[in-house]
Amino acid sequence: TVSDTESSRSQTLAVIPGDGIGPEVTAEALKVLEAASPVTFGSTRYDLGAERYLATGEVLPDSVLAEIRGHDAILLGAVGGKPNDPNLPPGILERGLLLKLRFELDHYVNLRPSRLFPGSASPLADSVLGRGEIDFVVVREGTEGPYTGNGGALRVGTPAEIATEVSVNTAYGVERVVRDAFARAEKRPRKKVTLVHKTNVLTNAGSLWWRLFQSVAAEHPGVETDYIHIDAAMIFMVTDPARFDVIVTDNLFGDIVTDLAAAITGGIGLAASGNVNPDRTAPSMFEPVHGSAPDIAGQQKADPTAAILSGALLLDHLGHPEAAARIESAVLADLSKRAPGTTRRTSEVGDAITARL
Amino acid sequence: TVSDTESSRSQTLAVIPGDGIGPEVTAEALKVLEAASPVTFGSTRYDLGAERYLATGEVLPDSVLAEIRGHDAILLGAVGGKPNDPNLPPGILERGLLLKLRFELDHYVNLRPSRLFPGSASPLADSVLGRGEIDFVVVREGTEGPYTGNGGALRVGTPAEIATEVSVNTAYGVERVVRDAFARAEKRPRKKVTLVHKTNVLTNAGSLWWRLFQSVAAEHPGVETDYIHIDAAMIFMVTDPARFDVIVTDNLFGDIVTDLAAAITGGIGLAASGNVNPDRTAPSMFEPVHGSAPDIAGQQKADPTAAILSGALLLDHLGHPEAAARIESAVLADLSKRAPGTTRRTSEVGDAITARL
Ligand SMILES: CC(C)[C@H](C(=O)O)[C@@H](O)C(=O)O
Ligand SMILES: CC(C)[C@H](C(=O)O)[C@@H](O)C(=O)O
Repeated sequence: TVSDTESSRSQTLAVIPGDGIGPEVTAEALKVLEAASPVTFGSTRYDLGAERYLATGEVLPDSVLAEIRGHDAILLGAVGGKPNDPNLPPGILERGLLLKLRFELDHYVNLRPSRLFPGSASPLADSVLGRGEIDFVVVREGTEGPYTGNGGALRVGTPAEIATEVSVNTAYGVERVVRDAFARAEKRPRKKVTLVHKTNVLTNAGSLWWRLFQSVAAEHPGVETDYIHIDAAMIFMVTDPARFDVIVTDNLFGDIVTDLAAAITGGIGLAASGNVNPDRTAPSMFEPVHGSAPDIAGQQKADPTAAILSGALLLDHLGHPEAAARIESAVLADLSKRAPGTTRRTSEVGDAITARL
Repeated sequence: TVSDTESSRSQTLAVIPGDGIGPEVTAEALKVLEAASPVTFGSTRYDLGAERYLATGEVLPDSVLAEIRGHDAILLGAVGGKPNDPNLPPGILERGLLLKLRFELDHYVNLRPSRLFPGSASPLADSVLGRGEIDFVVVREGTEGPYTGNGGALRVGTPAEIATEVSVNTAYGVERVVRDAFARAEKRPRKKVTLVHKTNVLTNAGSLWWRLFQSVAAEHPGVETDYIHIDAAMIFMVTDPARFDVIVTDNLFGDIVTDLAAAITGGIGLAASGNVNPDRTAPSMFEPVHGSAPDIAGQQKADPTAAILSGALLLDHLGHPEAAARIESAVLADLSKRAPGTTRRTSEVGDAITARL
């Protein structure tokens, strides 16, 4: 793996196409990104994922992680092998690659915008959609919670087995992500932050989140605040999603809420995300929310829109907000022209969006 | 608190009306239950909840728990005070009363049926509803997982605070609830069980659930099995809910999934639940999924249907399946005749359903 360009003026991308449909959607994201960007990107491609693991036993060698660290940002397609492959136990790639990158590179803001683009199909009834525009962003904590890998198991495989998972929450980790959420809300027209948690049951973590939410809120008197339990959030998400502006929540609740958010706004084929290190002590990583969909891999059937929109988030993060906005507008135009019932090849979608830039 | 009747032939109910709309919906549930039941119930009323706590500092005295244990079943309305009451910290009633009852009485099957009754309004689009009938049941584990109250906090209130929540999962606890789910599936026409978890991240607990699910499945060759991650379950719940028959899942995922299930099948006003001890070593408890809704308390505005359907689950559990079915049919008939846009008083709904028995 060698950088394509070494120009000091260019910015560098580590590209991890991954498995399944990952390479196809990544190719389109790069196509659009390069066409929209005011600067030239030097990119390095890293073959990581199920294929590499199954062939070599390697998930994320330290040397590769060190190299990736040297880039300005990471574009990731999707990782994951065939379901229930006995040679690929659950967690190997998730914990060893995806979460390892998020944790090692301190991606404490997992940013997931949700917007119902005109022309995209929501599974919600018109009566719900008529309540108002759906346009919110979930700020999901990315480096703590039940995702830390804490916990363990005893007497595995016996009737006396016990397995634990520990959700770890620190003032350090919670405060910084809550601050980020309020800072984002300040820049949005509605200026509202909703905390989603389960303070009535998870009282230790809940109390920490609640107190820090209140204290950061006090510094932002112009921002409206709201709290809802994760279970009630499910109800509002399908009956009144227009009520949300910025949602801040923990790693696991954020995982759950963002898939539902993607579903109600036209599906996982459109959901982009950024794993952001706001302090810029390491490169941030941009990826579609969807998985590797091995069943349709290599058939040019995947919708690359989520990967393309993730590319827009990447450009924005690297200081090119106009280019990011151009991609968003092109996607919007493309979506509004999609004829229901017709399908295009993955590369055709990328070409169509590029043509609109 | 003294039993109304002492007849040895009658069965006894502990009734906990609770707070907010709890007493109103419980009154209707009892009205319908008594009208439908082939036996006379002796009932004891226990005043527990926010009001008692705020007045006396008592949540669930040991002596009251011991008395409740002596009944055949428990009917609970709803507990919970005004939101953000500084005198009622989150968790006091949930951990001290509701979860305490579930844990102490070994309610390891938290049973939550979801069915789109004709005439009830779903927030889902017709294109989704047209995919098939929505009629599934969630078997939510009730005595383990992140609900155990394990975990703690250090250096509370300082920038060095750390708070943990420990999800505890045992082979003992997981196997028995998975067995219950398969036994229920055997009795349903579609005979399908879907495990919902997050095995790719929560690998310790996930592996335990996955292995026990597989081994119990092997004993039920006639039952179809499926696995989906909790995040993907969110998507299916709003795009293809007809795919579900029996869902088995942990305590927290079950909390989340059942509120979404209630929302898509006409709302929390219809969602019934049973906290069941299948071994009958202690009384089971039946309650609507909704909360105490203090904002509309005492105004006869609450829909008692969820409480009434919980009463049907109670009758079924106590060996009166025909009476339970009669209540269900009466509710169904009532729902199909509800005129959109009109509202009835809580007691009017109870009367109408009673009249249809
Ligand atoms: C693949 C998995 C580890 C990941 C997560 O749970 O975060 C995914 O679901 C996501 O939301 O990015
Ligand atoms: C009130 C709360 C403790 C409870 C739970 O989380 O189980 C409720 O949400 C429910 O689903 O019955």
